[in-house]
Amino acid sequence: MTRKIIRNGRIVTAVDDYTADLLIDDGCIVAIGRALDVGADVEVIDAAGMLVLPGGVDCHTHMDNTFGDSTTCDSFESGTRSAAFGGTTTIVDFAFQRKGVSVLEAIERARAKGADGACIDYGFHVIVTGVDDQALADMQHAIRHEGVSSFKMFMAYPGSVMVDDAAIFQAMRMVGQHGGMIALHAENGTIIELLIKEALAQGHTAPKYHALTRPAIMEGEATHRGIKLAELADAPVYFVHLSAREALKHVVEARDMGVPVFAETCPHYLFFDDSAYDSEDFDLARYVMSPPLRSKESQQALWTALRTDDLQLVSTDHCPFCMKEGHLGRVNQKPYGRNDFSKIPNGVPGVETRMATLYDGGVRAGRISLNRFVELVSTAPSKLFGLFPQKGTIAVGSDADLVIFDPDAPHVISAKTQHGNCDFTLFEGRGVTGQVKKVLLRGELIVDGDRWLGKTGSGRYVARGESGGW
Amino acid sequence: MTRKIIRNGRIVTAVDDYTADLLIDDGCIVAIGRALDVGADVEVIDAAGMLVLPGGVDCHTHMDNTFGDSTTCDSFESGTRSAAFGGTTTIVDFAFQRKGVSVLEAIERARAKGADGACIDYGFHVIVTGVDDQALADMQHAIRHEGVSSFKMFMAYPGSVMVDDAAIFQAMRMVGQHGGMIALHAENGTIIELLIKEALAQGHTAPKYHALTRPAIMEGEATHRGIKLAELADAPVYFVHLSAREALKHVVEARDMGVPVFAETCPHYLFFDDSAYDSEDFDLARYVMSPPLRSKESQQALWTALRTDDLQLVSTDHCPFCMKEGHLGRVNQKPYGRNDFSKIPNGVPGVETRMATLYDGGVRAGRISLNRFVELVSTAPSKLFGLFPQKGTIAVGSDADLVIFDPDAPHVISAKTQHGNCDFTLFEGRGVTGQVKKVLLRGELIVDGDRWLGKTGSGRYVARGESGGW
Amino acid sequence: MTRKIIRNGRIVTAVDDYTADLLIDDGCIVAIGRALDVGADVEVIDAAGMLVLPGGVDCHTHMDNTFGDSTTCDSFESGTRSAAFGGTTTIVDFAFQRKGVSVLEAIERARAKGADGACIDYGFHVIVTGVDDQALADMQHAIRHEGVSSFKMFMAYPGSVMVDDAAIFQAMRMVGQHGGMIALHAENGTIIELLIKEALAQGHTAPKYHALTRPAIMEGEATHRGIKLAELADAPVYFVHLSAREALKHVVEARDMGVPVFAETCPHYLFFDDSAYDSEDFDLARYVMSPPLRSKESQQALWTALRTDDLQLVSTDHCPFCMKEGHLGRVNQKPYGRNDFSKIPNGVPGVETRMATLYDGGVRAGRISLNRFVELVSTAPSKLFGLFPQKGTIAVGSDADLVIFDPDAPHVISAKTQHGNCDFTLFEGRGVTGQVKKVLLRGELIVDGDRWLGKTGSGRYVARGESGGW
Amino acid sequence: MTRKIIRNGRIVTAVDDYTADLLIDDGCIVAIGRALDVGADVEVIDAAGMLVLPGGVDCHTHMDNTFGDSTTCDSFESGTRSAAFGGTTTIVDFAFQRKGVSVLEAIERARAKGADGACIDYGFHVIVTGVDDQALADMQHAIRHEGVSSFKMFMAYPGSVMVDDAAIFQAMRMVGQHGGMIALHAENGTIIELLIKEALAQGHTAPKYHALTRPAIMEGEATHRGIKLAELADAPVYFVHLSAREALKHVVEARDMGVPVFAETCPHYLFFDDSAYDSEDFDLARYVMSPPLRSKESQQALWTALRTDDLQLVSTDHCPFCMKEGHLGRVNQKPYGRNDFSKIPNGVPGVETRMATLYDGGVRAGRISLNRFVELVSTAPSKLFGLFPQKGTIAVGSDADLVIFDPDAPHVISAKTQHGNCDFTLFEGRGVTGQVKKVLLRGELIVDGDRWLGKTGSGRYVARGESGGW
Ligand SMILES: [Zn+2]
Ligand SMILES: [Zn+2]
Ligand SMILES: [Zn+2]
Ligand SMILES: [Zn+2]
Ligand SMILES: [Zn+2]
Ligand SMILES: [Zn+2]
Ligand SMILES: [Zn+2]
Ligand SMILES: [Zn+2]
Repeated sequence: MTRKIIRNGRIVTAVDDYTADLLIDDGCIVAIGRALDVGADVEVIDAAGMLVLPGGVDCHTHMDNTFGDSTTCDSFESGTRSAAFGGTTTIVDFAFQRKGVSVLEAIERARAKGADGACIDYGFHVIVTGVDDQALADMQHAIRHEGVSSFKMFMAYPGSVMVDDAAIFQAMRMVGQHGGMIALHAENGTIIELLIKEALAQGHTAPKYHALTRPAIMEGEATHRGIKLAELADAPVYFVHLSAREALKHVVEARDMGVPVFAETCPHYLFFDDSAYDSEDFDLARYVMSPPLRSKESQQALWTALRTDDLQLVSTDHCPFCMKEGHLGRVNQKPYGRNDFSKIPNGVPGVETRMATLYDGGVRAGRISLNRFVELVSTAPSKLFGLFPQKGTIAVGSDADLVIFDPDAPHVISAKTQHGNCDFTLFEGRGVTGQVKKVLLRGELIVDGDRWLGKTGSGRYVARGESGGW
Repeated sequence: MTRKIIRNGRIVTAVDDYTADLLIDDGCIVAIGRALDVGADVEVIDAAGMLVLPGGVDCHTHMDNTFGDSTTCDSFESGTRSAAFGGTTTIVDFAFQRKGVSVLEAIERARAKGADGACIDYGFHVIVTGVDDQALADMQHAIRHEGVSSFKMFMAYPGSVMVDDAAIFQAMRMVGQHGGMIALHAENGTIIELLIKEALAQGHTAPKYHALTRPAIMEGEATHRGIKLAELADAPVYFVHLSAREALKHVVEARDMGVPVFAETCPHYLFFDDSAYDSEDFDLARYVMSPPLRSKESQQALWTALRTDDLQLVSTDHCPFCMKEGHLGRVNQKPYGRNDFSKIPNGVPGVETRMATLYDGGVRAGRISLNRFVELVSTAPSKLFGLFPQKGTIAVGSDADLVIFDPDAPHVISAKTQHGNCDFTLFEGRGVTGQVKKVLLRGELIVDGDRWLGKTGSGRYVARGESGGW
Repeated sequence: MTRKIIRNGRIVTAVDDYTADLLIDDGCIVAIGRALDVGADVEVIDAAGMLVLPGGVDCHTHMDNTFGDSTTCDSFESGTRSAAFGGTTTIVDFAFQRKGVSVLEAIERARAKGADGACIDYGFHVIVTGVDDQALADMQHAIRHEGVSSFKMFMAYPGSVMVDDAAIFQAMRMVGQHGGMIALHAENGTIIELLIKEALAQGHTAPKYHALTRPAIMEGEATHRGIKLAELADAPVYFVHLSAREALKHVVEARDMGVPVFAETCPHYLFFDDSAYDSEDFDLARYVMSPPLRSKESQQALWTALRTDDLQLVSTDHCPFCMKEGHLGRVNQKPYGRNDFSKIPNGVPGVETRMATLYDGGVRAGRISLNRFVELVSTAPSKLFGLFPQKGTIAVGSDADLVIFDPDAPHVISAKTQHGNCDFTLFEGRGVTGQVKKVLLRGELIVDGDRWLGKTGSGRYVARGESGGW
Repeated sequence: MTRKIIRNGRIVTAVDDYTADLLIDDGCIVAIGRALDVGADVEVIDAAGMLVLPGGVDCHTHMDNTFGDSTTCDSFESGTRSAAFGGTTTIVDFAFQRKGVSVLEAIERARAKGADGACIDYGFHVIVTGVDDQALADMQHAIRHEGVSSFKMFMAYPGSVMVDDAAIFQAMRMVGQHGGMIALHAENGTIIELLIKEALAQGHTAPKYHALTRPAIMEGEATHRGIKLAELADAPVYFVHLSAREALKHVVEARDMGVPVFAETCPHYLFFDDSAYDSEDFDLARYVMSPPLRSKESQQALWTALRTDDLQLVSTDHCPFCMKEGHLGRVNQKPYGRNDFSKIPNGVPGVETRMATLYDGGVRAGRISLNRFVELVSTAPSKLFGLFPQKGTIAVGSDADLVIFDPDAPHVISAKTQHGNCDFTLFEGRGVTGQVKKVLLRGELIVDGDRWLGKTGSGRYVARGESGGW
């Protein structure tokens, strides 16, 4: 591989902010310096006036994931390419331990999909749907030998993926002793199932009832329960897609006491609120994700928590389903629930818009600093999920996953100009300032403006170290 | 100046941790890389097996400071040399706006002392003892033109340095609008004065009554009051030497709400507790500092808060007075209060022991991570008080203030082997692991093991940028 | 019925405290006054120097209740007679909706037992173990027509009486709309079941493991969950036998916000703590109740909460099982779990000792006022569970349920001198001051010193009004 | 004195609620019963359909009180007569320890005014403006021998009545040891003084600036400080006219911990909010009281706290100044501050409207129960300030201070139909339901509909017992 040098960029990490050249060799950063003296054979990328950021790390994506009858519309290929255009160079997706499939087999199958299609680097959490001695042994093995140190469990969706408190507790206790961490989808599924049944029985079938049957207070309840299970298990815990201040409150309290509780939120909770659910129109299916959009008070609380480190990272929960049935051949997409909101597949796209929207709405709007932005989208996820220092920073020895970002470039977000398979984005038509210009993956230029220079399948599996360190 | 290269050290910042070479030119870091290719004229320092840390920044020291009849026993020279041996390359000391002296004159006088004696770099907070239009104008000028963006005010010591709530509020409001920050000594001075008077009236003259007359609950009260004044003024606030969980509680609550409240604690509160005040012996005068040592519960809470970022930094409040009257010619030292605890000058030395004790008791004991250690002793103080990125990190363009630290070297702390003027240390006889081996100030090797290679007066004044950013 | 007059007693209610005569006619209080002028036919009871208190109301007893293979050793007769000797004139016991038995049938069966054996007045909560449309309709009927306005549900004991969150929520919502209230046994049964299984698998069969497998944090979790379910249901909620400060915390928070959350504690949690579980001895089976005894910190918090009204009443959870198998012919008592702590029937006697212990340890010890004592043992339970003003006070028109109490009489508590069937009391040998001297039930003297003057079966069923008012 | 009997009223106390006859002899209640048999000489008052309540106790009034240049417009006579028409039969007014006047002299002077003019019973708090050994000794004497067990101190109004923290602490400690309690006006006077000066300097002279210069956060600050002083002094503390949720928060927290903290609020904070300060009009002088009206959120929090017992009582802070200069000959009334809001005398009338407005807006509106209403306006103030059981309840032996109240009578509040000297009421034109029909003071009918039957000077001084019991 040719060596490359990025000249004169403003290099920003979670702590630092300075102008220098970056020398890349063999996919890694080998030197950082003022006016580095390198040979003529070294390819030069000029980054004057640009920010040079560590590649984004998105710890919550669903590429080619199947839930019930529906499969997300992005393949590993389309989804990771879309991520790359958005400045993300590593994702942690999910391996699904379906009935009759062991934890280790689940990892194997997921890795096979990644090996074929990944355009950027990737790892996996395992979604654990059943806990027995074998599963516990496999989880321990996965942490030590497979580079999988985080496992997701659901407190919602009874009859499908929901597990009971004892299963969560056993898993927490075991992985906590071996450097792993449980990630929870925290909503009280038993109550939600009842509310859904009642809503449907009353003829309430429109998408808005998705939101009305998933009350914030029941996210708060489950979050509290998850924290207490973790305390009893003496293990760290992570909350995916935290959306409600009723849930945040418990995370804040626990962290104040030094309990190792962590949580992400997602851009849709930061930029949209429940005023979206204002009609019986089926078009509101685009806002069907779980948890649903919350109140403006919750939104404000999430922004504050990003600053105070009560929320540690921003992931996308990229879980795209098309609004138009049959788009790119995908079936059982959003219209699948046209007559029954409970059948609308839950989820929205987001992997490509995370960095631009958070930069614009966070950094430029004065809510978070530039360093904090980098920490939220790259450094913190890397540290928390065992990818650091390979990923998540710009330092000698780290992978040369880099984003060259123009902080002053205005552009308008549209599904049409994005690179994934989904036919909509919640941010359609939103003008933002700050744009990804070039992306390097382990030193290779894979995105250059609108051009895709990467290679399908060239993304590598990243065996992760321990998760859950503070 | 010759260029220097530090080879093969394990470079640790508040975020990163990697092994590389560091090239220094003209006092700054100019390149960081693997096996940097440099000419033979470059002086090589081998750091294999060593940590390379950014030089310590201590934001609370009292060199040659006079309180009442007593003056701290360290001159600018002895104190800053002692700091250097402890791994600290920058201090922020105090300029005292005495009666009849303006804020700007106070800065001028302090700078003159520094110019003569400083062995490391330095800046100043101004101690403001009176607020009127002139003082407010001077504070604004100091922020913009003198590199002084922080001002200390006392809620204790009535009749001496205490100011009232209105003065604090006015100062907060003005400096908050101009990029400055008020630092508060938060104890309810009115109550303490009464308790002291009552104790003395009852014949309680021993040092232990110093502690008994400064109850933790009154530190809590003043801390709450300071926060509310800052909220009303819409300004950041900083609490020096926070010691009691009764005070910490309010800092935690405010930060949870996103209010810009900051606080330091000091090593003596982390390693000692109020069980020290167990006799009427005058030897306990060594434990006379304000606030006094607190309960074990408070100590535990402080450690937790260092991890959760509810406390952002560790300063020393180095304020040394000798236990032996006349030591090195100093008078009115601790024995000045032999018959009246209220006359014992308040303060303990600490500038030389901060990094070694916090590394041993924090990092090695598993309470904080190595990155967090660096953040607490160098990065956070630099960022909060406007010294960053000149100080506080290891990055291209930053000053080459560096500590080469052997993480495995055991040593025993003793006043005899320290380099300041004080005849005691609270840590006397304590064995710790982790030792400063070499210190560079702007690229100059000033400490090499036991040898002092620096030059008196070669420390430079650092004009600071804004204070109080989150 | 002859009229009676109680002369010169010090009459104490939840608010008042004065000396007067009490005239009783037809079982009710008809006049209160100074030197009431009555005919010679009126029977006089001299109460000079005595307190005259409203009869105790104990809202949590288990007379002749069967759990699994074991039945409490007190029949309705022995238990209510024992209660009477302790100053309690009304109990609210339980009607058990077993599998295949409807809520209304359960009430009918319970009433039959009461009709035969009750020595004092009584009502019932229904233990609801399954929620469907019929059960919900029955509950509504029970509130309106059967005088049963409270229903107990279990968050513990899976596979037996535990119900899921949706059942609790549905019941809360329905009864909340109709003047009823759900009472919860709040412990996370799923986790406890796992811990028990694990303990037994490790050969831990002694009684102390009962306590170790029911951690306080899981009472806290369930209590929080119960409160959130009640908030969602917009209904009041009541927590039985609250024992841990981890649970109390949530009750306090909810009440501070004006949420209608109520809780009782029991004397055993006020006078004993988990230091009792100090050996593997089977004799510790006497301390096997659920929840188990808690920490001294919890105990202290409970006492504070009794004063601050964060706990509103003191019930006994009288649930007696003998320590000696075969005592009075009872089988499957405590020894049933000799080789397996999970088979030890859970519960302790207490109905006879409540008032004397709480008076001694509460009023005399200065922790609560005399008025508050009356409120805790009589007025508050009556108001909260729809017995007021028939029960719970001394006022014109109220039932003449009265206790003549000697505040200065010392005595020693012993199972031998008590009147129930249980062969032990946790208070064995404890000397207390303050003793029940006479008890009147609707004007009839049923207890006079050691003599039982009442009649089996003369206790009446009390149809209760609404529960859960604030 | 003739005996009297009140027939068939619905007697309501803080706990009870029943229908009975009340026999009064020699000013006291001597019997309560069903169809009491009394001689023909006994005067009968028919109360069928009426509530019979204990006479109101208002613990915060200012009759003929002088502040600076202004004196409240109600004399002892007019004010207490007005109180009687409002259902209040006892007030606790203030004795003012002016400069050069001792605490005991202050009591003597106040008693002289009461002896001449009181139409109802009365006691005094002493306003303590200076603390020295003599004052402390006098306070102790006042508690033990003068029937004055509460003392008010000001944290506001520097240069006038404000005292410093040490004075408050000393007074708290002393009275706390002797059965007394300090009542605090909790606002940070130092800050308020500055804000006033600044507002005036900017030409802001209108009444609305009174509110803008007394921010809620500074009531919160002072309240917290007062609580911490009380904790240090190990003494109870009482907050007068608590108005802001920023202050309430601290009271709630302290009470949760069992700290003996008490507070009143006033009807104007419950029925009006800061939206009143919407213009520069001088007519807004009617809303000039301290603290000023607060936000709707605070108002809502106060109502909740009345229910949860976080606020224990409702007093009026009746402090009337006329809107029209010269009304009834009074000068230096509200217009005194026409050109300078800081000169507008602070205060509003309220003593006559307390019970009717709180009944209508509290009980009828479903915010508090009828028993709680009685507790708030009569029982709690009596218990807290040492008037109980002479005042504050309907029980044998208590004073026959009684209000016959028609719960269904609608009427419209107007200054014109009131009986005090003030020319306005904030409630002008408000229609309420529930009206005082008759008032008895120690058995004498003093109010009968619109007719005044009482006698000036017949109100008696009540020597109070201890204050501050929980
Ligand atoms: Zn926090
Ligand atoms: Zn997801
Ligand atoms: Zn200080
Ligand atoms: Zn200091
Ligand atoms: Zn139970
Ligand atoms: Zn509370
Ligand atoms: Zn029970
Ligand atoms: Zn007042």
